[in-house]
Amino acid sequence: MSAVDRSDGGTVQVRSRDGSYDVIVEAGVLAELPQLITDRVTAQRFAVISDDNVAPIHGRLIMEAGLDAGLDMALFTFPPGEASKTRKSWSILTDEMLDACFGRDSCVIAVGGGVTTDLAGFVAATFLRGVPVVQVPTSYLAMIDASVGGKTGVDVHAGKNLVGAFHPPRLVVADPEVLTTLPVPEREQGLVEAFKHGAILDGAYFASLEDNVEDLRAAEPGVAGPAVARSVELKAGVVSEDEFEGGYRQILNFGHTLGHALEAASEYTLGHGSAVALGMLMETRLGERLGVTEAGTFGRLRKVLEVLLGPLAWSATDPESAVSYLRADKKVRGGRPRVVLLRRLGEVDPGQGWSHEVPWETLAEELATGLGVA
Amino acid sequence: MSAVDRSDGGTVQVRSRDGSYDVIVEAGVLAELPQLITDRVTAQRFAVISDDNVAPIHGRLIMEAGLDAGLDMALFTFPPGEASKTRKSWSILTDEMLDACFGRDSCVIAVGGGVTTDLAGFVAATFLRGVPVVQVPTSYLAMIDASVGGKTGVDVHAGKNLVGAFHPPRLVVADPEVLTTLPVPEREQGLVEAFKHGAILDGAYFASLEDNVEDLRAAEPGVAGPAVARSVELKAGVVSEDEFEGGYRQILNFGHTLGHALEAASEYTLGHGSAVALGMLMETRLGERLGVTEAGTFGRLRKVLEVLLGPLAWSATDPESAVSYLRADKKVRGGRPRVVLLRRLGEVDPGQGWSHEVPWETLAEELATGLGVA
Repeated sequence: MSAVDRSDGGTVQVRSRDGSYDVIVEAGVLAELPQLITDRVTAQRFAVISDDNVAPIHGRLIMEAGLDAGLDMALFTFPPGEASKTRKSWSILTDEMLDACFGRDSCVIAVGGGVTTDLAGFVAATFLRGVPVVQVPTSYLAMIDASVGGKTGVDVHAGKNLVGAFHPPRLVVADPEVLTTLPVPEREQGLVEAFKHGAILDGAYFASLEDNVEDLRAAEPGVAGPAVARSVELKAGVVSEDEFEGGYRQILNFGHTLGHALEAASEYTLGHGSAVALGMLMETRLGERLGVTEAGTFGRLRKVLEVLLGPLAWSATDPESAVSYLRADKKVRGGRPRVVLLRRLGEVDPGQGWSHEVPWETLAEELATGLGVA
Repeated sequence: MSAVDRSDGGTVQVRSRDGSYDVIVEAGVLAELPQLITDRVTAQRFAVISDDNVAPIHGRLIMEAGLDAGLDMALFTFPPGEASKTRKSWSILTDEMLDACFGRDSCVIAVGGGVTTDLAGFVAATFLRGVPVVQVPTSYLAMIDASVGGKTGVDVHAGKNLVGAFHPPRLVVADPEVLTTLPVPEREQGLVEAFKHGAILDGAYFASLEDNVEDLRAAEPGVAGPAVARSVELKAGVVSEDEFEGGYRQILNFGHTLGHALEAASEYTLGHGSAVALGMLMETRLGERLGVTEAGTFGRLRKVLEVLLGPLAWSATDPESAVSYLRADKKVRGGRPRVVLLRRLGEVDPGQGWSHEVPWETLAEELATGLGVA
């Protein structure tokens, strides 16, 4: 029954343009971080980047262990939250590293959630035209999603993640034990991506997640570790196939075309997980309506997502503003919108190049319909 | 007698991480730009980026030709000069493209000198995590140096080019005819890099440059075109071998370790070409002093560089501030300084991995000695 039955996580190898890198998922592995870094990165100095919430917990422990092991390490912090994922924070962190005389023989160690892995990754991507980054994700979302695939970047006024770079990490170290320090709502939001991986790629994994919602929410290491490892394995398989989102990688956008529009329409009061959950539901309802998705998929998906997140509803948006939110998405900017549709839970419909071109009006209608309370 | 005898420039293929790209050097080739772009770039929209000096001349012609050919093109401009090579200009250009709804199917066309190719290249490198860039260099420096090799970036307070990315162009189109629109001092400054290429890689090319200083300065197409083509060919050979400056590519830094320090020490009142010329001279004097460089090399190099640039002299700097300027260089940041030394004109001494580790004190002494009037 797939990864949830494994007890020890594991190591997943991801292929990338610059070679390949390991994602190590293992309870307690953070204690071995200095050794892992020494073995795999040829750098003389290490810049640990973390937000002000994570720095006093995991950032400090990593610093202490690194300094004890004789590594030349310094800690750089920034205020927590999506509001920090900006060109300004990126500039400040870069300048602080420059002022501290970090050079080409540096390595960035990103310790935190998705904001940190994206922001610190972009600092590394552009520091002296690129230095290595080691990702140490501390949230479900970062472990499952943000730290694998090499996407880095920041938000700008025109939208989220519109400025950035592909910069594959040298190593990803995910310790499921740290998930217990994560607030429960953040665990719930992050787990949505695990359900997405199951929905698009592995029906058995989806079923096992359905059976273990409570333990996943509690971040029980014996359940959380294998789930993270399986999600990483599934995502790694996709990005190894298509690093730059030319074709197959699109399937990871399931729920995101409408999800991003909902997130923008809510002025980001909706959590990313909730927005993607609503997006997956609306895209599945659309798929059923178009005869692409097996009937009943929407109902089953809604049921488990509501066990995870509580009632999911979205009140109607006027179609015109719905279109404007859709157009803001970088995946559809300047082009025609494409949506990933399921064939059934565990399988994406191949469509035309792994997605379906859907008229603006149809998508806007979907958003404008909203989602009533079940 | 090498490239200066060819009459028609030529096409040089450069290998890169993402495949390979052509550098087309040909008088009058700009007229074919729309066709070349259509043939080689799969994009729907084109952002022409140019400074306020170049935009009304070459930018406008390229826009007109592109629009006539039915391409969807828009022009984005910024104030001329190194002072524009900043994160701020990069942000503004990026936001303007986003506001104009440029999406993933975009291509940046950089039209201008080194500041433009670096700045617009960095916009392309980070726009929606990277869109293609076509480089259309309009100065000797940009044709010979900046447009080949994929380096993009901006200056920050701590130093020049400290933030950026490797983003190889999809195509480079260099039309030597445009060099006649370039102010003479800029031609002279840019040609220093051609002498550098000859000095490190091709003694016959160096000699042909020596014989043709006046025609090169006048940008005679029959002499300028082949010289640009030969320099591109030499540089392309180096960066094809070592794209990310791990080893062999270092030889391109000849003159630059001390040159950058001199540029900084002058507070950038010294032109880049003059600074590199002084750097090459001081590094050659050092090479002769260390017994690495053939005696007489310094004298011959100085003679031709003074024919090109006029008298070259540098008054002594106090050793302490000289060291601080050296430490600001990204090539030596946090590490030990390395200098590329010639064996003779046309050949670099292999040293240890294509450069020599030289103590800080020796380099500082070299800077502190300065260079008296010949």
